[in-house]
Amino acid sequence: MMSETKTESIAELMDGLGKAARRAAGELAECALDVRNRALSAAAAAIRRRSGDILQANDKDMAAARERGISAAMLDRLLLNDERIEAIAVGLETVVDLPDPLGRVLAEWERPNGLRIQRVSVPLGVIGIIYESRPNVTADAAALCLKSGNAVILRGGSESFHSSRAIHRCLIEGLEAAGIDAAAVQMVPTTDRAAVGYLLSSMRGALDVVVPRGGKSLIQRVQDEARVPVIGHLEGICHVYLHETADTEMAKEIAVNAKLRRTGICGAAETLLVDRRAAERLLPPVCSALLERGCEVRGDETTCALVEGCIPASEDDWSTEYLDSIISVRVVDDVDAAAEHIRRYGSGHTESIVAEDVAAVDRFFARVDSAILLHNASTQFADGGEFGMGAEIGIATDRIHARGPVGAEQLTSYKYLIRGSGQTRP
Amino acid sequence: MMSETKTESIAELMDGLGKAARRAAGELAECALDVRNRALSAAAAAIRRRSGDILQANDKDMAAARERGISAAMLDRLLLNDERIEAIAVGLETVVDLPDPLGRVLAEWERPNGLRIQRVSVPLGVIGIIYESRPNVTADAAALCLKSGNAVILRGGSESFHSSRAIHRCLIEGLEAAGIDAAAVQMVPTTDRAAVGYLLSSMRGALDVVVPRGGKSLIQRVQDEARVPVIGHLEGICHVYLHETADTEMAKEIAVNAKLRRTGICGAAETLLVDRRAAERLLPPVCSALLERGCEVRGDETTCALVEGCIPASEDDWSTEYLDSIISVRVVDDVDAAAEHIRRYGSGHTESIVAEDVAAVDRFFARVDSAILLHNASTQFADGGEFGMGAEIGIATDRIHARGPVGAEQLTSYKYLIRGSGQTRP
Repeated sequence: MMSETKTESIAELMDGLGKAARRAAGELAECALDVRNRALSAAAAAIRRRSGDILQANDKDMAAARERGISAAMLDRLLLNDERIEAIAVGLETVVDLPDPLGRVLAEWERPNGLRIQRVSVPLGVIGIIYESRPNVTADAAALCLKSGNAVILRGGSESFHSSRAIHRCLIEGLEAAGIDAAAVQMVPTTDRAAVGYLLSSMRGALDVVVPRGGKSLIQRVQDEARVPVIGHLEGICHVYLHETADTEMAKEIAVNAKLRRTGICGAAETLLVDRRAAERLLPPVCSALLERGCEVRGDETTCALVEGCIPASEDDWSTEYLDSIISVRVVDDVDAAAEHIRRYGSGHTESIVAEDVAAVDRFFARVDSAILLHNASTQFADGGEFGMGAEIGIATDRIHARGPVGAEQLTSYKYLIRGSGQTRP
Repeated sequence: MMSETKTESIAELMDGLGKAARRAAGELAECALDVRNRALSAAAAAIRRRSGDILQANDKDMAAARERGISAAMLDRLLLNDERIEAIAVGLETVVDLPDPLGRVLAEWERPNGLRIQRVSVPLGVIGIIYESRPNVTADAAALCLKSGNAVILRGGSESFHSSRAIHRCLIEGLEAAGIDAAAVQMVPTTDRAAVGYLLSSMRGALDVVVPRGGKSLIQRVQDEARVPVIGHLEGICHVYLHETADTEMAKEIAVNAKLRRTGICGAAETLLVDRRAAERLLPPVCSALLERGCEVRGDETTCALVEGCIPASEDDWSTEYLDSIISVRVVDDVDAAAEHIRRYGSGHTESIVAEDVAAVDRFFARVDSAILLHNASTQFADGGEFGMGAEIGIATDRIHARGPVGAEQLTSYKYLIRGSGQTRP
């Protein structure tokens, strides 16, 4: 695609995408729900119909990745197969089923002077998505943007370039079937990293927000370079705190699930905090269950004394996102000490308290300020799908605009509609 | 204040403010409503009690400003008198009367697995406010931040330094009376412009958001330099559109009020758009009313032909925020043409349609994407107080986080509280 246009500068290219996106966003904002949904359904059909093309494109990416000696984990993220392609199509259809995020009356009231005020949801406008190797993000992110009436500029990782392009083609088919401007979903047609720099630093006005989705180094780059608003997704150093009133069996099940169900997601627990008064009762069975399942346990002194097979934790462990079968374990004095530990070492993502005492739960909920707090449930529920949002672009840990799972509803802004009968201001 | 600490670097100074603010924010987030309100009431009392000190400090600022040959308009913004000081105290009390923006359950639902999810409002955290010469902003901004549980770092204009400091002292008295950490409301204790640069570029993590409040050059600086999230307040190029079904008398009253009630506020109308089919009926009386009140009228060809005393408008007029007794007037074909003009030249702030035809109003509301749209009412209602928000820090024209008037409610974020009974994720 880009081979013919190498002479064109990145700036020209990106400004062109920006202009087309803004034009498409204007149309999309007025697009009825059934038209947006029709595009999504048609895209799902195209994904199924063109699965052969998508697999072929993916083969190309996989071969190049293997040649470059990419890690097994990354190869797995990159890989598409029939099952995963079907999941992409189903994902699009899930978004069709979501309620319309646009035109919701978020608040309304009347003023003493008779003015009737409504706050009504509208699209954000143009969204930039920067992501890494998972090609399914191309469809997931575009679907949420489209559902919420936003034009989107997608910039996927270079490893998944061909796979993403094949999926993008299906999305365009969907737009065309619904009569929507194809510029509603654009993909940056080059793997040149300068395009990301330009998108972050020079497209203020063209982009209303950028959503990065990827690992720490991507997020860091976005935060360093962005001159456009960002909906931020930091790392997830999530905690499970076992209160002295925790049920032993439940504590074990939640700790094992929170840590080990999937270790590579941001909602996976990294640290277990245990009340001193219940350490003897809880630590041996909980840690044994983790160790039995192949999890490395790095504990403080008390933990190491109580748990056979425990390795001593260092100060660094408390602020490490392992994303692996490793957990750090610390004994704390009470809810306040747990909250203090989380404030100091956590990333404001997701924490869970296991307790039977409601007062302790309330105190934990009040004192810990993370995007998601759970009582007697696994941190792995930190997921837009599990929240019933249908899908998500990620979990925001910044406090501006959206916090927690970012779904279609979070990709909206609002405007005020005020109806009067000739009022002037005294 | 700063004279003794000149050797301390700006970075050390600002980092110190940031750390103290973060600590105070942690306490404030758990502060009950009556404690926050007590601080505001006590601050209002201190403002009244110390009005002599405040006036003396203001004299100092006024003398220095006169010496520097500052404009009459700026001197007026800087001036405090008994009436204005009373208004500051009343402003604080108005914020006391607002409902608690914290702890609101914004949404709640239950999942099929039994998890009960609540989205609950919480403070943003630490807010930086950069403003210009009006000393009352010191109290207004601090009050909204305090009400919404946020710590604030205030950086006022150097012209109002002494006045702001005197007001700040009263705010501290209020905090002390309520037993709240004085670092909840801090003022940058130096007029060194480097402090603004540091605040914008190097306090990511320390500040959750910066709210600039001032003229175009301040906003420009903030947008250019900010590495922290900004709630943006751009210029207000507001339009009044007279539909062909507009009532003549109402059109006249709204146009005059929108333009002339106060010309220096961002909600003042700058451009009048008039339907071609009603130009002959509407333009002569509406423009005469404006001209009679000393307003300069700059019109397109049709307007100039219909209105005696009209000056030809140039292309630049359509994108100029006069903030003065000048209005540009253009004849358009219909609602769509009006919307197109606004899209092209407007700033997304506030627009009003005067019309009797409801379908035209609906179309205008759908096609124009500004923060505030009014039907048969003056654009000068674009104000937090007029919305019933009690007060505002400004009108946001960006689309992220808050749009329109930014009051106490808009200075909040949220977190999710999820209650389970032992759920693990399959």
